[in-house]
Amino acid sequence: MMMVVKIGGSILDQDIRPIAQDIKNLRERGERLVLVHGGAKKVTEIAERMGKEQRFVTSVSGFRSRYTDRETAEIYSMVIGGLLNKQIVAALLSEDVPSVGLSGIDGQLFKAERKEKIKIKEGEKIFIIDGDYTGKVVEVNEKLVSSLLEAGYVPVIGSVAIGEKGEFLNVDGDRAAASLAGAMKSDVLVFLTDVPGVIDKGNVLKRLSVEETEELMKRIEGGMRRKVFAALEALKAGVRKVVIASGLRPQPLTEALREEGCTVIEQ
Amino acid sequence: MMMVVKIGGSILDQDIRPIAQDIKNLRERGERLVLVHGGAKKVTEIAERMGKEQRFVTSVSGFRSRYTDRETAEIYSMVIGGLLNKQIVAALLSEDVPSVGLSGIDGQLFKAERKEKIKIKEGEKIFIIDGDYTGKVVEVNEKLVSSLLEAGYVPVIGSVAIGEKGEFLNVDGDRAAASLAGAMKSDVLVFLTDVPGVIDKGNVLKRLSVEETEELMKRIEGGMRRKVFAALEALKAGVRKVVIASGLRPQPLTEALREEGCTVIEQ
Repeated sequence: MMMVVKIGGSILDQDIRPIAQDIKNLRERGERLVLVHGGAKKVTEIAERMGKEQRFVTSVSGFRSRYTDRETAEIYSMVIGGLLNKQIVAALLSEDVPSVGLSGIDGQLFKAERKEKIKIKEGEKIFIIDGDYTGKVVEVNEKLVSSLLEAGYVPVIGSVAIGEKGEFLNVDGDRAAASLAGAMKSDVLVFLTDVPGVIDKGNVLKRLSVEETEELMKRIEGGMRRKVFAALEALKAGVRKVVIASGLRPQPLTEALREEGCTVIEQ
Repeated sequence: MMMVVKIGGSILDQDIRPIAQDIKNLRERGERLVLVHGGAKKVTEIAERMGKEQRFVTSVSGFRSRYTDRETAEIYSMVIGGLLNKQIVAALLSEDVPSVGLSGIDGQLFKAERKEKIKIKEGEKIFIIDGDYTGKVVEVNEKLVSSLLEAGYVPVIGSVAIGEKGEFLNVDGDRAAASLAGAMKSDVLVFLTDVPGVIDKGNVLKRLSVEETEELMKRIEGGMRRKVFAALEALKAGVRKVVIASGLRPQPLTEALREEGCTVIEQ
């Protein structure tokens, strides 16, 4: 079975050895794995230490967000591609799992589109400014990932993308993982996060159909909303099953595949 | 023909498009290329911006050097593997050269040995302290590099290594490139640097035998001494020819292969 696993940034702060050990076990049972990770939290930490001021803008619809300028996008590449990516690779190698780390820039693994101009609001005034260095993945080089898998490696991919003009772009890691899982015709996409699954009215939802998920989208917010949105994108792209599960328990992937204490969204 | 090219950190400060364009031309003529790069200068710059204090120690033989602690080794991985590496990959992709960036950590591409303890001198006193996170490459995963070459990519490798215990290690980029060139049975190893070659008594030396180079080693110093030492290691490992050339002129690699205005060291 082929599975794409997205490891959330909140997990990367913790001891990742249990995940690495679990991956070793799954490989011994014949599973083929590809990991995707982000790391915005660590990016913010390093940017602050570098004295790089973070700018925030408000969209015309009133949504406030970080404005990723060119230098911040470089810090994304540096921290995600050079630090977190290699720490995951090193953790896998320590469990004798052959592993190779890439970012979405390598071989245009994640090719993304960027908005040239955006509209922002300051008080009552509306301005048109240059778009920031964020993008949406539009093309995936799944052949590169497959060739590493065939050579016996666990590919570990940092979710930084490359734009039309060769620029580094910050992209949503959950959606990037969904694009990759779709392009690779992955059987399962697992999101490892710091909560046990999708929580609605205080309970972890065990199993959802696409229709139920679309209905649910009307009332969830924040990070989980983005994750569920990405899950739906993956299912539309042909992935059979998406699991949202805690990455903070022992054998997190084995448990997710057993569908224990997590949320499963299926076609 | 197969060639390994080491791009010096002083070159990476400049516009690297001429190098990328030259690589495009060489590939069209059927050459197979692997790039290796370091970037200590940029590491120092980022470490300083992060407020990471750099410590220096004096060896018992009186040699003063930077003490690469664990965090500094992480900054090496971050800057070399996530920033400089991806900037080179992006420059190649902009010239339509398919390219994939790795660091020595990936697939244990550069496996290195680290000294557990070192002796240092402070004033007249001698102390034994834990060794820093520097190492010497002892094993190269040339199969990983070959598989990328066969898939049509130009592999770009940042010279950070992995130790026995999975730790990140700072290694000498010139010697790492020499190890790789030897392991891959490369025809040529080119060092692109910010000077036209080995300069002795004010002149660029055009051609040197191994014997002449060993003789020369007695009187050169600093960075060039390390480069020439690495050149000799490569030749001993079976590389046919080493070229030390400027990376700051147009078509730097084509000129180096023509043996124009540079130093050639041959078996």
